[in-house]
Amino acid sequence: MTFDTAALAPMADAIRALSMDAVEAANSGHPGMPMGMADVATVLWSEYLKHDPEAPDWADRDRFVLSAGHGSMLIYSLLHLSGYDHPTMEDIRNFRKLGGPCAGHPENFLLDGVECTTGPLGQGLAMAVGMAIAERHLNTAFGSDLVDHRTWVIAGDGCLMEGINHEAIGLAGHLKLDRMTVLWDDNRITIDGSTDLSTSEDIKARYKATGWHVTECDGHDFASIRKALDEAVASDRPSLIACRTVIGKGAPNKQGTSATHGAPLGEDEIAAARKQLGWDAKPFEVPAEILANWRTTGERGAKVRAEWTERLSASSERAEFERRMAGDLPAGFDLDSYIQSLMKEPQKVATRKASEMALAQINAKLPETIGGSADLTGSNNTKAGGIGPLTAEDYSGRYIYYGIREFGMAAAMNGMALHGGVIPYGGTFLVFTDYCRGAIRLAALQQTRAIFVMTHDSIGLGEDGPTHQPIEHVQSLRMIPNLLVMRPADAVETAECWEIALREKNRPTVLALTRQNLPQVRIAPENTDLSARGAYRLKKAGNKRRAILIATGSEVHLALECAEALEKQGVGADVISMVCTQLFDEQDDAYKADLLPDVQPDEILRVSIEAGTTFGWDRYTMTNGLRIGIDRFGASAPAGDLFEKFGFTADAIVPQIMNKLNA
Amino acid sequence: MTFDTAALAPMADAIRALSMDAVEAANSGHPGMPMGMADVATVLWSEYLKHDPEAPDWADRDRFVLSAGHGSMLIYSLLHLSGYDHPTMEDIRNFRKLGGPCAGHPENFLLDGVECTTGPLGQGLAMAVGMAIAERHLNTAFGSDLVDHRTWVIAGDGCLMEGINHEAIGLAGHLKLDRMTVLWDDNRITIDGSTDLSTSEDIKARYKATGWHVTECDGHDFASIRKALDEAVASDRPSLIACRTVIGKGAPNKQGTSATHGAPLGEDEIAAARKQLGWDAKPFEVPAEILANWRTTGERGAKVRAEWTERLSASSERAEFERRMAGDLPAGFDLDSYIQSLMKEPQKVATRKASEMALAQINAKLPETIGGSADLTGSNNTKAGGIGPLTAEDYSGRYIYYGIREFGMAAAMNGMALHGGVIPYGGTFLVFTDYCRGAIRLAALQQTRAIFVMTHDSIGLGEDGPTHQPIEHVQSLRMIPNLLVMRPADAVETAECWEIALREKNRPTVLALTRQNLPQVRIAPENTDLSARGAYRLKKAGNKRRAILIATGSEVHLALECAEALEKQGVGADVISMVCTQLFDEQDDAYKADLLPDVQPDEILRVSIEAGTTFGWDRYTMTNGLRIGIDRFGASAPAGDLFEKFGFTADAIVPQIMNKLNA
Repeated sequence: MTFDTAALAPMADAIRALSMDAVEAANSGHPGMPMGMADVATVLWSEYLKHDPEAPDWADRDRFVLSAGHGSMLIYSLLHLSGYDHPTMEDIRNFRKLGGPCAGHPENFLLDGVECTTGPLGQGLAMAVGMAIAERHLNTAFGSDLVDHRTWVIAGDGCLMEGINHEAIGLAGHLKLDRMTVLWDDNRITIDGSTDLSTSEDIKARYKATGWHVTECDGHDFASIRKALDEAVASDRPSLIACRTVIGKGAPNKQGTSATHGAPLGEDEIAAARKQLGWDAKPFEVPAEILANWRTTGERGAKVRAEWTERLSASSERAEFERRMAGDLPAGFDLDSYIQSLMKEPQKVATRKASEMALAQINAKLPETIGGSADLTGSNNTKAGGIGPLTAEDYSGRYIYYGIREFGMAAAMNGMALHGGVIPYGGTFLVFTDYCRGAIRLAALQQTRAIFVMTHDSIGLGEDGPTHQPIEHVQSLRMIPNLLVMRPADAVETAECWEIALREKNRPTVLALTRQNLPQVRIAPENTDLSARGAYRLKKAGNKRRAILIATGSEVHLALECAEALEKQGVGADVISMVCTQLFDEQDDAYKADLLPDVQPDEILRVSIEAGTTFGWDRYTMTNGLRIGIDRFGASAPAGDLFEKFGFTADAIVPQIMNKLNA
Repeated sequence: MTFDTAALAPMADAIRALSMDAVEAANSGHPGMPMGMADVATVLWSEYLKHDPEAPDWADRDRFVLSAGHGSMLIYSLLHLSGYDHPTMEDIRNFRKLGGPCAGHPENFLLDGVECTTGPLGQGLAMAVGMAIAERHLNTAFGSDLVDHRTWVIAGDGCLMEGINHEAIGLAGHLKLDRMTVLWDDNRITIDGSTDLSTSEDIKARYKATGWHVTECDGHDFASIRKALDEAVASDRPSLIACRTVIGKGAPNKQGTSATHGAPLGEDEIAAARKQLGWDAKPFEVPAEILANWRTTGERGAKVRAEWTERLSASSERAEFERRMAGDLPAGFDLDSYIQSLMKEPQKVATRKASEMALAQINAKLPETIGGSADLTGSNNTKAGGIGPLTAEDYSGRYIYYGIREFGMAAAMNGMALHGGVIPYGGTFLVFTDYCRGAIRLAALQQTRAIFVMTHDSIGLGEDGPTHQPIEHVQSLRMIPNLLVMRPADAVETAECWEIALREKNRPTVLALTRQNLPQVRIAPENTDLSARGAYRLKKAGNKRRAILIATGSEVHLALECAEALEKQGVGADVISMVCTQLFDEQDDAYKADLLPDVQPDEILRVSIEAGTTFGWDRYTMTNGLRIGIDRFGASAPAGDLFEKFGFTADAIVPQIMNKLNA
């Protein structure tokens, strides 16, 4: 049913009242946006959004993304009013309090109905692009009977000024994601004051230039809002609706100013707003009739979902659809026979190439992977297994030419993973994790299965020089909570890492891969799944153990060389391949103590070897261990020259070890 | 003088020949762009660019930025041909070789005439915006007699697709930087192939929407190029010239394809190109007449510079101008009396507020500072000392409303610092260093004096929750070579840090500052300049020393509390404030050993206390020390609740220390 203006206005005012009151009670928060966008959101949720509060995880629901995440009280209000189990009114009373689900910014892991974690501006919109891609792709795979929904975004001026906005809308426009609509809260106010302070841009013209349909509405006129939404729905391109609004609408003395943006309105202004809105209810109370109207808005969705459920039950693809949406891998999926074939015929390849070889297997076995690269396809080796391009003309493709848009790519990958039904992976150079670090962090926080294929992982990339050579990157990524950083040493470890990454439903993975060829160090066919423990003993000391060499990736074969030289001098040396420090840290004490026994360096010296910063390696070498690394920027030269210059040769390392041992 | 087409064509071909040959000799590199843009660059450098090869550091030279840094052979060719001391032909022969100045991507610290280090796409253009801002600002300060130059940028499709492009041109358009011109190498090719693969954008329309003047030219027609450049010079807005070019122009079989982008052309294709171009000279030889023509192009600049030098000599502002361009602080500048006033009247303030107090002093004493914030002025406390906004109408202002453009801001700051004559500082939340990390790294690599004012530096920001709470950020920034990361504990340390940052001519600084109030811990007036050593003993053990508490920023007062509780139990405890690990690491061994004596934990236990990741703290606590930190994402709640939840109270920490000591 559709409500008339007399009914809609108080429904919108309920959002305003809850937002004012919750921010006031928390004594912190952002009332301006929820109050300004209350009318638009009310029309969208009550008349357009396809959702069922009884089934927040319904696969064919529309996705609603509050990209302007600071306005979190908008979505908390909408979820509560339309009848989701949470947040309860008690939850809303505890807005921004410890342990409650109504955090300062919306967190997908705290509340159903929050599709993604937002707050870092621009990323919500960019994740929505990924959701819209996943929808179109799954639509081609499973048909409109099962997959046919829209992605709605509320974004503010901040989201539109951030650089990622340019990358995201460029991708969406190019892919003609017509099921995506951005509702821009055009209130002409930012934190610092009027938008005139910092921008002169014609946003609508910019979106048009990028292939978007653009329309506008009076964000406080229900008919105007409906007209714009109808137009967006009808468009064959993604749509921007410029919603002309008044920030803090309803607060008579402060509305239209940045004073309403990020601070409580204060008791007096709230009283004045209640008067102006004619809102008589007490704080955290919604009059029964208004709440009842809100609750009926979900009925539309319940009916549509019931029909959809019938179609699903009747579908021959039901099992496969449910498997994919649950994020389960196909029964029996593994890479064992491929890994055994490597054991039989060892390969000397770059790990980026080894990744391509693994992907050829994976992409053939898993229809849910969607690969891509930020314009480095041939360098990242990400196009494998015969997958074809996903384009505006053919959404069934499984490879995305993301363009030179690292941040946009990583955020889109998060959106795809959050949408479900697909497993995204995408590549760029490891050094450019700096360009998309915000999205990698958000992948970790949101617990998404996004796989970042980061090649050219050290000075081993050679001539491109210091701007392209990671130094601090691997270690600095290892610090991000809930992120797996893997640096495989050869083709076998690379395949193992891929399999681990694919099985991690709630953790993103960064694969750090080489440009240069590496010998295969894992050749014993009985040794499988070793990477899963994060670190393992690749070589056991022959002579009495005096040293443990801990290396990663391209330095593992160098550690083996060093060990060989040490053994010749009578010094026993273990070699440990530390593929993933995070997984190693999760092992039990016995396993850890077996690999790294707690004895002093004069007994057994621990040595780390990694072509990157030594910062942080003390954790594994102990303070008096030896750390071989690079604590300055790199240089431009052929890789071999650089490894020599920076001391990554057995000739340079072994004497340092002997020295320490004899000291 | 202006050359006719018959003379210009071989001048451009000299660039093509050197680029092909150098890439071939290095067996790596990017010939496509230099060959495609050779004609445009030849017209620009020979007829428009104001420069004097004899004086690469001439303050009033035009700035030329090769934003598409992979095309480095273009600038190496231009510098050599027009007569700079370096690169010599020998340098060019050693393109991409160890120790040579012709690195894979142009490095400002290796060659005069390279204004900034480029390669990470989009940042060159964004730095050019900063250079153009500095020029307009200094023009108002010193007049057109001394400061009146242009900023030219060559950018490729990659630069224009990167998100930072949107931020940079938005700022430039808003500030109407009419002295800035971007020459877009519109060759419709990226690494992956045709631009059609990844973009459908109307770039010219987008630039127009952002307040730019837009024109175009045939990039291989000298008259057309001139016409477009004339139009750009005449415009009262920043200009984009779409230069329609053929990538790899001159290579008959490969031109116009991505095959020329990033790989040597190969012997056969080079031979064919020589034939097509009619270029008979041997590799690395330029016919005398062509070289002579190139060398005369510098004469224009020599003459203009001579006139400028006369004006400078006659100027009453000469000393001040030279001081500012040399980057020297005014004689006698210090904050001593301000710091002494703090000692007399200790302040309990947030360090962001303390930063504002220090800035009030600094901005009054140093006319060269240009502050700003990415739309968080009131939160970063960056507007201080009565400085007014720098706007399109008034470039004399010293405060920039950067808008919600963290990456664009940081890159513009780098550009200002590289331009010289100004010292830029700018703020955002510390967590959003993730949004501008690429520029912070480039600041460190380029050795610029840019000061990043990063507030809200821990869970102490409270309710905004995990998306806004830095965990890994401080440590991960400490890993970047040549970057000073400072986390002051109170108003005194904050002032000391500001002074250190201002005096560091060749290192950028990140100031990590609190949202929440902190008591002043430094109150003894005889103790000054303590922060300069990176760490110092704030409190000496009373009882026999059994513990050393190493804390930073907001945890220093907590360490003092812990020490007090320990002393009550008879355990002597030093408290060390580790303001800046990098500066501490640079101290002599005696100083370091005095603070952190090399004894085992059962004698003296070292404890680190920092409200962020514990990763890396082993370096200072030793392996068996105790590390108090946060190794997970934060949460949304009032700051006090969070510090308690995460164990940042004396009650939670002291028992852990006692436990370790008695173990």
